[in-house]
Amino acid sequence: MISRFMQSRMAPSPIREAYERAERLKTEYGASEVFDFSIGNPTAPCPQGVAQALSATLESSGPAIHGYMQDCGYLEVRQAVADSLNRRFGSSFGPEHIVMTAGAACALNVLMRAVIDPGDELVVFAPYYAAYRTFADNWGIKLVTVPYDERTMFPNLDAFEAALTPATRMVLVNTPHNPTGLVYPDDVAEGIVDVLKRRKQETGQDILLVSDEPYRELAFDGTKAPWWPALYENTVVVYSWSKSASIAGERIGYAALPPTMEGVDELCHCIRRGIGELGFVNASATAQRMAMACVDQTVDVSYYDVNRKALYEGLLDCGFSPIKGNGAFYLLLPAPDGDEERFLENLAAHRIVAVGGSAFECPGYVRLSYCISNTAIKASLPRFAEVARLYFG
Amino acid sequence: MISRFMQSRMAPSPIREAYERAERLKTEYGASEVFDFSIGNPTAPCPQGVAQALSATLESSGPAIHGYMQDCGYLEVRQAVADSLNRRFGSSFGPEHIVMTAGAACALNVLMRAVIDPGDELVVFAPYYAAYRTFADNWGIKLVTVPYDERTMFPNLDAFEAALTPATRMVLVNTPHNPTGLVYPDDVAEGIVDVLKRRKQETGQDILLVSDEPYRELAFDGTKAPWWPALYENTVVVYSWSKSASIAGERIGYAALPPTMEGVDELCHCIRRGIGELGFVNASATAQRMAMACVDQTVDVSYYDVNRKALYEGLLDCGFSPIKGNGAFYLLLPAPDGDEERFLENLAAHRIVAVGGSAFECPGYVRLSYCISNTAIKASLPRFAEVARLYFG
Repeated sequence: MISRFMQSRMAPSPIREAYERAERLKTEYGASEVFDFSIGNPTAPCPQGVAQALSATLESSGPAIHGYMQDCGYLEVRQAVADSLNRRFGSSFGPEHIVMTAGAACALNVLMRAVIDPGDELVVFAPYYAAYRTFADNWGIKLVTVPYDERTMFPNLDAFEAALTPATRMVLVNTPHNPTGLVYPDDVAEGIVDVLKRRKQETGQDILLVSDEPYRELAFDGTKAPWWPALYENTVVVYSWSKSASIAGERIGYAALPPTMEGVDELCHCIRRGIGELGFVNASATAQRMAMACVDQTVDVSYYDVNRKALYEGLLDCGFSPIKGNGAFYLLLPAPDGDEERFLENLAAHRIVAVGGSAFECPGYVRLSYCISNTAIKASLPRFAEVARLYFG
Repeated sequence: MISRFMQSRMAPSPIREAYERAERLKTEYGASEVFDFSIGNPTAPCPQGVAQALSATLESSGPAIHGYMQDCGYLEVRQAVADSLNRRFGSSFGPEHIVMTAGAACALNVLMRAVIDPGDELVVFAPYYAAYRTFADNWGIKLVTVPYDERTMFPNLDAFEAALTPATRMVLVNTPHNPTGLVYPDDVAEGIVDVLKRRKQETGQDILLVSDEPYRELAFDGTKAPWWPALYENTVVVYSWSKSASIAGERIGYAALPPTMEGVDELCHCIRRGIGELGFVNASATAQRMAMACVDQTVDVSYYDVNRKALYEGLLDCGFSPIKGNGAFYLLLPAPDGDEERFLENLAAHRIVAVGGSAFECPGYVRLSYCISNTAIKASLPRFAEVARLYFG
């Protein structure tokens, strides 16, 4: 019954494998005995806008408020998003530049399909979120990966410049970054953009920059994620409230299109068509109202900052060499002997579940999602210490 | 910036064209002066489960209730769906056979992708919902259309049998039916299934039957839509609460997989993978709770039955020859002189917006969606009478 296409895609994803490993351990030992750092499922309390939106929906409950709307979303929601961006970044978005989507994953899929033909190229910077490859595969897109600088974990810009070809259609950036937990400093962002501008100057090639920003507000130590549209005109910002409002299961985000880009209306049209053609139809009505209420609200980001510090310091104390992140809620930890698979097994034997770095094209590391409770973080540290003793004696 | 693939798909869909025609007329004359029969956006009051689910969500508002869950949906929601189906149809679904989806459109897309390879064939019965072709096009599927019997508007079964080839992977049925508003009588359903069974016997070919049932509960005059899984083992039922609970904008539905089918676990796995890979991730959390609360509730279907009778009788009185439907909320009206395009223009000149039958592969007709208010239906009848005078004097 299964198509040959799907038969070639049956292997479980590494993140899904980690999730299932966690579920097995929880069944065996009880949930409180397992430290599940596998999935980025936020636990910080939702901002009050979420409940306010539910309340308002309930008060005006009737078919009109739950019915179809334009495929790009409610006008008032798009207006609220545009206004908020314009206030915060001095941009000039109108509601016509905002398309509400069922999370960032929907936006990335319809964008790739709208811009890149089969065989043409999408450039991503390793390490990168594994789903980027999955989405590219949907549309027969060639994924070109740029290696990272081992010292900084930031993109190797010479390799980036060398990776561009006449078939390059889109470059995808993500900061605060999954899986490193790093915020690109200004010079890294400017370096990436300089390569694109030079390419345009030398070859006339227009390359679309897409910034995937589900972690924008989760930046610590006074850092701020770069605002790419101010650096490069042809930038689409893809956003999701999954992390900033702890509503990952509601599936709500947007794509913000560059107002001054030539052909922006056509791009908008194609994104909207994609939303219909792939069966999204429109982003969920109630989720759109939650997003509108949270347009200037976020979870208390100190919730994750406390976790970040506790986990980083705790791992250092054990003798590990964690990468010190300053954003998102991920920590990248090198396997002490470089053997990622054995490190994952040793962690699991102590009921700690992580995801192997190979899933993100950074083998030899494991990723820890520290969006669990602070209590769980603290309780996990003695377990990490036991694992450390296997390596450091 | 636009992919060649999307450049070939830029033409607006006929339903979208009708929607925009309606919007233009509303801007020009005011909304109350326009009779918009174009889109199936339900106006019957939601069943009380919708508000109850919002209330319950509000009371337990916190990140857990808005977070990611399994890609197939909440266990308790899938259990409630399975239980309801088993009660009503004597089936034996478990929660593992139910996959919650972002409406029927999501389910149809991931199903087609899971089962049919590029170049392989999907059989649909004309007239058919235009999006079936769009979804098939996404995956390079060859859409094979079976003509209808002009007397009954039901499928021509000889033509159906002749349309099957070794490349046929899936047959898609839909009743109560868009756009005819007809419920297939038992002998039509049995006739379709007999062809499939004969094919299996003669060639050993396993063909998946998919029943798209967003209008199941909207059956009038004591009719009941056939329950396909009782007629044919390899049946997937695709459902949506868009119409039955008036929550089309929330995007919630399911696929119910045949428990006894060989390879059902694999099919389920592929559907779940598709939900992730296309960026749906999971059906919206709050929408799933609405669906669970409405699992045995529907809108008051007499709301649409009253419209159906008023519109049918009114059109007859004008001299038109409407097809008498007994389901969904669509009425198919032949252009008196067979000229669909001119009929649409004449209707629009009297501020009545319909969709041309060509969109559904039944040229010479127009489709009227009577899911608008009963007041609007009544107020539209003098306008229809004016149009009738253009044809009948």
